[in-house]
Amino acid sequence: MVPGGGRGPESRRGRRALAVRGAILRAAAGVFRRRGFAATGMRDIARAADLSPGNLYYYFKSKHELLYFCQDHSLDRMLAATRALGGARVAPAERLRRVIRAHLACMLDELDGAAAHTEVDALPPKLRGRIVAKRDRYERAVRRIVAEGIRRRVFVPCEPTLVARAVLGALNWTARWYRPDGPAAPAAVADAYAAYLVRGLEL
Amino acid sequence: MVPGGGRGPESRRGRRALAVRGAILRAAAGVFRRRGFAATGMRDIARAADLSPGNLYYYFKSKHELLYFCQDHSLDRMLAATRALGGARVAPAERLRRVIRAHLACMLDELDGAAAHTEVDALPPKLRGRIVAKRDRYERAVRRIVAEGIRRRVFVPCEPTLVARAVLGALNWTARWYRPDGPAAPAAVADAYAAYLVRGLEL
Repeated sequence: MVPGGGRGPESRRGRRALAVRGAILRAAAGVFRRRGFAATGMRDIARAADLSPGNLYYYFKSKHELLYFCQDHSLDRMLAATRALGGARVAPAERLRRVIRAHLACMLDELDGAAAHTEVDALPPKLRGRIVAKRDRYERAVRRIVAEGIRRRVFVPCEPTLVARAVLGALNWTARWYRPDGPAAPAAVADAYAAYLVRGLEL
Repeated sequence: MVPGGGRGPESRRGRRALAVRGAILRAAAGVFRRRGFAATGMRDIARAADLSPGNLYYYFKSKHELLYFCQDHSLDRMLAATRALGGARVAPAERLRRVIRAHLACMLDELDGAAAHTEVDALPPKLRGRIVAKRDRYERAVRRIVAEGIRRRVFVPCEPTLVARAVLGALNWTARWYRPDGPAAPAAVADAYAAYLVRGLEL
């Protein structure tokens, strides 16, 4: 998922560049979450990634580019989860449960949680447009599961757009309150959210 | 709610100062929402409120103070709604529906929606502490409704803290996508959210 900086992951240099880029994105996401995007400088990210500023600039040319790749990476993970749902054989309730679990796995992981948390509006227009398009694709996938459940008469009749947004809001908001050192384990949050959010739909 | 700048609301000057402060907070919240807090300057707020910068500084000494009063105002509104629920006579499901409606009325109003949307972390520590304390009080009120429903055996057994956060996340996230000129009327959002979020709990 993390775009490579070398000659592809098959070469040793390529693999190393990929690993460094991944580590930088993870460090950047952590700093964005702790300090906020606006208050974060490339120096803070370099320090968190244990690199010199010059070395950091070799991999990423700005904090906006870093924010873009953080968000892009988490959306790729979430979209991949919607493609791996098992199709029409799996009941809509179970598919929605799987999406909720995959989304939370993404959110409660430091890299992706912080990435989704940070404002997409902080991106320059061109990068922002790409993220918004990808985010819309993901939202449509969630909406389709709700709509299919209604059509199959296993979900209560409702407005799929609004319910999908309520679900995604509940999931995304975890980035605001979840602390890895807090009392709730990721699995407990995933169980509680999947049960509650699917129960509101099931007939 | 909006703190007065004059000799109390009974005097004409007091009423006028109160109205101006309210108009400034509303304008500031709109600019924070459109541009983001970090990118907003006092000049932008003065322009949106149709005041000279000097005149704006007479009422508020910084954009941080403006952000604080925006958030404080919306939390006061939400807390007032939890106190007006009618007590134990009203069933937990109906109380939760009322809280959801009051919260969304706050969110989808430009002033309060934008205020809740903006990061509390942008505030200086002392102001931040006051907002976090008030927000925690509000979250506890929502949690108590869920816990009472479980105790009365009208809600499904669950973890009240996590469910309360899922509800509040769904509600707060509306500030990210709701547009007053979009297809969903505030009442349609409130109906859909109240029905879905309470249904997930009711036995």
